[in-house]
Amino acid sequence: MIPGTPSRRVRVGLVQLSVATNRRTENLARAEGLVAAAAADGCELVVLPEAFATALNLPKSHEVAEPIPGPVTSWLASQAARHGVWLAAGVLERAGEHVHSSAVLVDAAGRIRDVYRRSVVYDLEAHFLTGEVGARAVDTPFGRVGLVVGYDIQFPEVLRTLFADGAEIILCPSILLRPFAEPVRQMLLARAAENCAYVLFAAATGENTLAGLTYMGRTAVVRSPMAIGAYSRDFRKQTPVLAEADREECVVAADLDLHELRRMRDAAPFLADFRRCGLSEALADATSAPHPSVTDTVPPHPAQAVGESR
Amino acid sequence: MIPGTPSRRVRVGLVQLSVATNRRTENLARAEGLVAAAAADGCELVVLPEAFATALNLPKSHEVAEPIPGPVTSWLASQAARHGVWLAAGVLERAGEHVHSSAVLVDAAGRIRDVYRRSVVYDLEAHFLTGEVGARAVDTPFGRVGLVVGYDIQFPEVLRTLFADGAEIILCPSILLRPFAEPVRQMLLARAAENCAYVLFAAATGENTLAGLTYMGRTAVVRSPMAIGAYSRDFRKQTPVLAEADREECVVAADLDLHELRRMRDAAPFLADFRRCGLSEALADATSAPHPSVTDTVPPHPAQAVGESR
Repeated sequence: MIPGTPSRRVRVGLVQLSVATNRRTENLARAEGLVAAAAADGCELVVLPEAFATALNLPKSHEVAEPIPGPVTSWLASQAARHGVWLAAGVLERAGEHVHSSAVLVDAAGRIRDVYRRSVVYDLEAHFLTGEVGARAVDTPFGRVGLVVGYDIQFPEVLRTLFADGAEIILCPSILLRPFAEPVRQMLLARAAENCAYVLFAAATGENTLAGLTYMGRTAVVRSPMAIGAYSRDFRKQTPVLAEADREECVVAADLDLHELRRMRDAAPFLADFRRCGLSEALADATSAPHPSVTDTVPPHPAQAVGESR
Repeated sequence: MIPGTPSRRVRVGLVQLSVATNRRTENLARAEGLVAAAAADGCELVVLPEAFATALNLPKSHEVAEPIPGPVTSWLASQAARHGVWLAAGVLERAGEHVHSSAVLVDAAGRIRDVYRRSVVYDLEAHFLTGEVGARAVDTPFGRVGLVVGYDIQFPEVLRTLFADGAEIILCPSILLRPFAEPVRQMLLARAAENCAYVLFAAATGENTLAGLTYMGRTAVVRSPMAIGAYSRDFRKQTPVLAEADREECVVAADLDLHELRRMRDAAPFLADFRRCGLSEALADATSAPHPSVTDTVPPHPAQAVGESR
């Protein structure tokens, strides 16, 4: 693939994983099988849920969290390199005294390309988790990609920095709970529309035994609903939800068309309008915190399997 | 009514008006009838569409626009005082060399309580209209109310300043075009959810003869879709769309419950989570432009009917 020339089509696979608390080895084993299935299905970009290996496990989060790079990151790198896929996943990260619900993007050679810490922390989590503002997009063969995590989706400004940074595909590993399902679905549709981007929402399913609640599931690949020319009748209604699941453990796969997205973005001048009104600079200033752990020259990380088990 | 004690219930009426270009007298006459109908139906807060008297009429916008206060504002004041209702409407405003798509909120005594200029201007409008950032909420007997206009709804940060300012009811007069209908509906649902507020979307209907396109219609009263207790099973699914229209000229009425909204906002701590993450301050700094034409001590404006016709 020639650098700088994005694929016209890219098949993505979102792994809707059943995430069990205190069952790390089992979670990784199931994830491994589903990543392999996604790769066998031709997926080039695969996304796992938030904190997929450990769950958030708030009372024990400081124990179960790990540094990035670290064991789960190495596991991701080895899976990515084994299958030659880009792989994004949520990792419960320990950084000093803080615990973050983070996400990592590794490339098909197993190198870390982006690390992102969830910006917004929910009320009850605030005793255990720390948020960190600073979303940004990175170049990939599939176009510009940005990461957000779970609860961030409720806060449009988190994604707006990605919009201002030219993100075309927004990845959202999630471990949100079932009561949020309807508003989250509405927000996914709006986020894709207002940011004129694909939104890949990879949700956890299964039971949060600590909370006595079920994870939301409803993984979905969502796109902007409509392409229109400025003041012309030449518009096409598009189905915004390209693929979705209910609550079963599975891979949700879809084909994205980056050339079509770029034509849409050119035809609908939201970004230019956004910049003209002056709000994008303010957001950029506010959210320009550097990303942790990733420098501009990305050192290669050797692909290593995780040997330890819990 | 005791100041500071909001009504538990308030009936709102959104006038879905057919707005004709170069037909000011007719637009005002039809609006008058529908405002009267809304008042007779018990509505205490009535909303008219964006630029309801004139349409945007881009090529002639500088001619048809007027100052605020001005004739259309006086017409609104007289209607409000006659029926004892709060009235919000879009007014094409001329301010020096600039033309804004603005909105005015007048109280039941005919006093101007808020003036807002649409923040974001669409590509083709940019030659004719000027945007101005600065949305804020004001106190009313119905709770805290904020104004946005039309295309703003596409830009979540515009409403976030209202969120940060405690807005409970967000009024959105609109004259958007029909191709936008589906994404706009998705955005309305998301705006109500992410801002935990009622969103009152008063749309124009009819034909934009200049553009050869139809106005969107689909006026709707939307609320946050779900009330949940933090990590509790005690949640209720709520229908987010309280009332709506298709494309007919009519009044869309619904009953809002401010006490219920406040309980919901207390139970879902999005605002505290938003403030904790630090983005709200940045937005507040960026959008603290003072509002035009309204000072903290609001001078009473005599209720006057508009005598001129076109």
